[in-house]
Amino acid sequence: MGKEIERKFLVNGDKYRENSSKTYYKQGYLSVDKERTVRIRIAGNRGFITIKGKTTGCSRQEYEYEIPVTEAEKILDNLCLKPIIEKYRYRYIDADNIIWEIDEFMGENAGLTVAEIELPTEDSLFTKPDWIGQEVTDDARFYNSNLIRNPFKRWKNNK
Amino acid sequence: MGKEIERKFLVNGDKYRENSSKTYYKQGYLSVDKERTVRIRIAGNRGFITIKGKTTGCSRQEYEYEIPVTEAEKILDNLCLKPIIEKYRYRYIDADNIIWEIDEFMGENAGLTVAEIELPTEDSLFTKPDWIGQEVTDDARFYNSNLIRNPFKRWKNNK
Repeated sequence: MGKEIERKFLVNGDKYRENSSKTYYKQGYLSVDKERTVRIRIAGNRGFITIKGKTTGCSRQEYEYEIPVTEAEKILDNLCLKPIIEKYRYRYIDADNIIWEIDEFMGENAGLTVAEIELPTEDSLFTKPDWIGQEVTDDARFYNSNLIRNPFKRWKNNK
Repeated sequence: MGKEIERKFLVNGDKYRENSSKTYYKQGYLSVDKERTVRIRIAGNRGFITIKGKTTGCSRQEYEYEIPVTEAEKILDNLCLKPIIEKYRYRYIDADNIIWEIDEFMGENAGLTVAEIELPTEDSLFTKPDWIGQEVTDDARFYNSNLIRNPFKRWKNNK
């Protein structure tokens, strides 16, 4: 419900793994139209459907609903665009109590790791942990919906 | 959840209005890709998101979840493809206890009325009420998702 403000960064090393929790994610898309993406996600043992509007600056309309995980599994297998994205998400809470989510991709996107923070306003201040690299918030190649159409392994000069 | 088997017919006259209940529907689509349509619907004062797969014969995979009606309203206004479909749905129970749903379209589809029944199997028997006309189950023009791209008012020779 409402709006999310997210910033996304590349990651150096794997120091974020210390003191963070790890969850397996599997997700696919019913629409990758940038005006109205529809995502099916399994996070651990829970299922979700998420609708997002077009990104404007760092803001985006988002609506998320929990659905039965067994049905999420069927929709991913039978109806979502292929390939399905699989990743481990690490949840890291920094000294300022800000939550970083670090995604280590697998399969067609293996080798890619990105970190995201969600902020209350577009100009919120925060401190970057030393393993945070280049910002890629505005680089559409890193949208999960685009990592289906053009997975990381196919990029030239990736990194 | 699961599969639905539906048959769709044109309608002669408005005799179905006697002894039937009437509900206002407003619906739009986040995806009209026939492999994976995603519909947002307001039915009376309730909101729903519905995912449907490709039609195979009369069968189709379908998953439906209730969502807050205020959010359904926002998603319809801000994110769904335009135009939004508006219609009155009449619910008519025939002598055999079979439920017919009759949709009277408004706006860009005014003038179109269709009736649908949902059946347990593809070869289930049923009796047609005398106001039931030509079957249009296999005519893709009558899919609600196609009534957005090509509304009834634009059809040549429409009835």
